[in-house]
Amino acid sequence: MKTKLLSASDIETILTNVGPNELLDQLIDSLRTGFASFEPQNVQVPTRSGIYYKSPDIGLIEWMPATESDRQLATSKIVGYHPTNPDKRSIPTILSTLSSYDTTSGHLRGILDGTFPTALRTGAMSAIASEILAPRDRPLALGIIGAGAQSVTQIHAITRVLPIEQIIVFDKNESAAKSLESRVSFVSIPVETINEVELPTYLSSLDILCTCTSEEPGSGPLFDDFSNKEDLHINAVGSDFPQKIEIPISLLKRAHVCPDFLEQALVEGECQQLKPSEIAPDVANLLRSSKSDQTKARNTLSVFDSTGHAYADFITTHFFLNYAESFCLGTNIEIETSPTDPLNPYSFLKRPSLPRPVSMKPAAATPAQNHGL
Amino acid sequence: MKTKLLSASDIETILTNVGPNELLDQLIDSLRTGFASFEPQNVQVPTRSGIYYKSPDIGLIEWMPATESDRQLATSKIVGYHPTNPDKRSIPTILSTLSSYDTTSGHLRGILDGTFPTALRTGAMSAIASEILAPRDRPLALGIIGAGAQSVTQIHAITRVLPIEQIIVFDKNESAAKSLESRVSFVSIPVETINEVELPTYLSSLDILCTCTSEEPGSGPLFDDFSNKEDLHINAVGSDFPQKIEIPISLLKRAHVCPDFLEQALVEGECQQLKPSEIAPDVANLLRSSKSDQTKARNTLSVFDSTGHAYADFITTHFFLNYAESFCLGTNIEIETSPTDPLNPYSFLKRPSLPRPVSMKPAAATPAQNHGL
Repeated sequence: MKTKLLSASDIETILTNVGPNELLDQLIDSLRTGFASFEPQNVQVPTRSGIYYKSPDIGLIEWMPATESDRQLATSKIVGYHPTNPDKRSIPTILSTLSSYDTTSGHLRGILDGTFPTALRTGAMSAIASEILAPRDRPLALGIIGAGAQSVTQIHAITRVLPIEQIIVFDKNESAAKSLESRVSFVSIPVETINEVELPTYLSSLDILCTCTSEEPGSGPLFDDFSNKEDLHINAVGSDFPQKIEIPISLLKRAHVCPDFLEQALVEGECQQLKPSEIAPDVANLLRSSKSDQTKARNTLSVFDSTGHAYADFITTHFFLNYAESFCLGTNIEIETSPTDPLNPYSFLKRPSLPRPVSMKPAAATPAQNHGL
Repeated sequence: MKTKLLSASDIETILTNVGPNELLDQLIDSLRTGFASFEPQNVQVPTRSGIYYKSPDIGLIEWMPATESDRQLATSKIVGYHPTNPDKRSIPTILSTLSSYDTTSGHLRGILDGTFPTALRTGAMSAIASEILAPRDRPLALGIIGAGAQSVTQIHAITRVLPIEQIIVFDKNESAAKSLESRVSFVSIPVETINEVELPTYLSSLDILCTCTSEEPGSGPLFDDFSNKEDLHINAVGSDFPQKIEIPISLLKRAHVCPDFLEQALVEGECQQLKPSEIAPDVANLLRSSKSDQTKARNTLSVFDSTGHAYADFITTHFFLNYAESFCLGTNIEIETSPTDPLNPYSFLKRPSLPRPVSMKPAAATPAQNHGL
């Protein structure tokens, strides 16, 4: 049984051949369609679990699984979150890999990078929520707090679906804020960097805001509540851990708060700060809601509480694997040993000489001493 | 950043070059040493979590992670359990892959098969418990209930450490029971197949018993309680799910029950049937206990409740990766995209032309219609 392995270079080939705008537009379409038809009886998405550690640096490795009964497929994303990576190791905070499994047998069908797809799908999910919840009747000012890797795909995706005319950036790391302009130069929209003193004034002028920071749990919110435009939309992307929050509770309480995944958002998203009764329907239900309900939500202050949905990873995994299939990319490798007799683990050996009859006497010195043979 | 990928053929090369007995002896040594020095403050092993489904067939995909602070390493085993695999698909019930991560950064260091290593380590863990808990003062009769893939490595491992002179097999699937003799011919020990009627009599004659069945949750125990030899040792290997049990509660209650991993065994092992006060110290503590305590446990009825320990997978993963390193095996592949700028997900592109400046106007028809541009 072979596993299709996509290398980083295969992902590059897909991106180069399809084009980044077209690829992102298609992923937005796939995710929108997938979530609009999300059926809890067809899709199982447990809240993620992981191992958190404080040494040598703060870090977290998590498992995000999802299964879809209709297609008899499961995916697993294993994602590392190590916020000291950019400064200490010049690698992204979030590294991950995606795997696809056949749920009839458990066979590993494919493995690919999850680092770039995660950035892309996180941007795409904000675009899907913003399409409905953000104003769209005028040229828009987009604010970014946290100018890391995720901000690039937030900007890319949101500018694909909404008429953004200026981007305003704050990051307490000034060099990160300053470099964002060149990193998103491909969207051809002016980027202005502001400092902490200017932040409250600028917040009040925004039409959309994306918060995508790596603050430590317990240190939020990122700013004091402010006098917002009445139809401001916020994509709160950074919260993904208990006690990690970005948005002030008073703002949340007067907003239409739409979680990507309610159960998870209650544990590690902005929804930690709210009672279930204060939370609006999730993004799947938002997509299926009536035009009048969507318009009503758009005309009020709204927050998309994006904790990261494993079903978005499921869709994204198969989106890339399908492209790999159609472009004949990837390497098919036998990773799982395939015994010719399923009842004999040694029968995967292609050279039939092993294991061969051996003496009953144990070969190892230690066990022999232990049991006195 | 490269990931070392071991193919099934690399695992075969390791097994062929080291030899199956020597390899198993060394793995037993590594696991014994690892568990004897197990420190809860150094090793994190959450109880596993997974997705269970009933369609198209009963199946389960689980995540078994472990981290070791001292070595700054984490492993993850993703394991599928699909008991209809042998009959319907001629592949093993348990398929899995093992991954190793660097906990400083979250980087995926290596991937390899987990199917063969799981069978091997499950046998090895039974051998480690049996070395201490089973009689060793006479030639021993080993009983096997459940003649599937795991029974092969149970027999191989136990015969490496104890003087087994006969093997008695029961499986309600008669052809599986009958074929075990040829599958374990390499141990050169007589194998006798018995039927259900003969089972009670034979149980009373055993010195060691391994239960390694795939019964459905709720259907256990496998047999009625019986008049056992006073120092009988049982390796209960099959229980790995809530309500899945193999051993009668009355037998457990008079036995020295040693779990591999207490928290997990209480949820999905034989220990489900016991109160914590009825359970002996776990295998790590057994290995560190005094000779007199070990002798006392050996002279009584004992059960090793083996639910599958993620730290055993941790040790086994690095055991194979270290062999791959020393034999120059495996393929180093860049799976994770490696951006040259950690703050720019697109900077993994080696061809610098992408993404290039684009028009602000969304390219996709659907979003454009949606927001009325």
